[in-house]
Amino acid sequence: MKSLTREIWMEVPRRRMIVSLHRQVEELVAESGVREGLVLVNAMHITASVFINDNESGLHADYERWLEKLAPEKPHGQYDHNGAEDNADAHLKRQVMGREVVVAITGGRLHLGPWEHIFYYEFDGLRRKRVLVKIIGE
Amino acid sequence: MKSLTREIWMEVPRRRMIVSLHRQVEELVAESGVREGLVLVNAMHITASVFINDNESGLHADYERWLEKLAPEKPHGQYDHNGAEDNADAHLKRQVMGREVVVAITGGRLHLGPWEHIFYYEFDGLRRKRVLVKIIGE
Amino acid sequence: MKSLTREIWMEVPRRRMIVSLHRQVEELVAESGVREGLVLVNAMHITASVFINDNESGLHADYERWLEKLAPEKPHGQYDHNGAEDNADAHLKRQVMGREVVVAITGGRLHLGPWEHIFYYEFDGLRRKRVLVKIIGE
Repeated sequence: MKSLTREIWMEVPRRRMIVSLHRQVEELVAESGVREGLVLVNAMHITASVFINDNESGLHADYERWLEKLAPEKPHGQYDHNGAEDNADAHLKRQVMGREVVVAITGGRLHLGPWEHIFYYEFDGLRRKRVLVKIIGE
Repeated sequence: MKSLTREIWMEVPRRRMIVSLHRQVEELVAESGVREGLVLVNAMHITASVFINDNESGLHADYERWLEKLAPEKPHGQYDHNGAEDNADAHLKRQVMGREVVVAITGGRLHLGPWEHIFYYEFDGLRRKRVLVKIIGE
Repeated sequence: MKSLTREIWMEVPRRRMIVSLHRQVEELVAESGVREGLVLVNAMHITASVFINDNESGLHADYERWLEKLAPEKPHGQYDHNGAEDNADAHLKRQVMGREVVVAITGGRLHLGPWEHIFYYEFDGLRRKRVLVKIIGE
């Protein structure tokens, strides 16, 4: 069995922000030499998500409005978690969008449908954040 | 390490529809010869989900109403994504229900609780769609 | 390839309840002898979740209120699933929080961010329940 492990760090200059991880994951799959296997991509922070959906800015704006409606940031005082912190909404939004994706590797490449694109979704940024990529297979 | 990869195509004659994948995944696990491992089952489309829950039509009707309340299809114009398209709600609903499931294989069989049943949930059908099954193990 | 399979049973004395699985999963990873691999942790019941988030009681109270707003338990009669049963809301809440987590194992240990903590979330308890831990790797 082969494996590859890589933490990807990034600056996140806004509180909420969607960042493509797609090319980096593709490159790590190639680097791993794994032909048949699985790749796990997960946020290492509990106020962020990794998800797969469309690379389309209108949809990303729709996610932003929709998540704010399902789990509003303000008023901060509506959440028990918000004493020293103000990010309870981020912990909720992350559950809707998910912590991780698991993607098949077939013939040495990500095995995805034509519109599947891997993203990181930050809900409490303004600092450095990281994502874990773990590849196993043969 | 053994692996098996299979795309399952299906006709989806309605916009929204729940389809059982359970028996097909069971058969592929048997075909793979894997005794101990994991199976990934994921939608290859970004307006659909694979999920595990009850095989009970009342619950499926409840999901339908609930998802329509959380992320209404209409009016189409409420979403930025809907210009040439009308399926923004499908991209939202799919995030609630999830893209994929990962299931253990133990002793050559799906290792599931008594009521766990694997389904595909289409949110923008009326065309051919597909699901990926990837099995790895030994 | 090595693997380890374990069902963890627990008494759940309330209808809804969050239970830490973290230490048990850590111990099973050590017991498995796997240095590089993946661990799947999933609910074996369809009215419960396994999720990763903050080990903070205020946040857990926020989840409780938030999920009750998204998918209210009562009135029971609002759901088609509730005839002989009264747990339709539990099947909905579980979809928001997710069925499973997949976590990397690196150097023989869970590879997690500093605040990631593995929990079981019961939405229809008052009886014995179980979780599956499946570890594969090398």
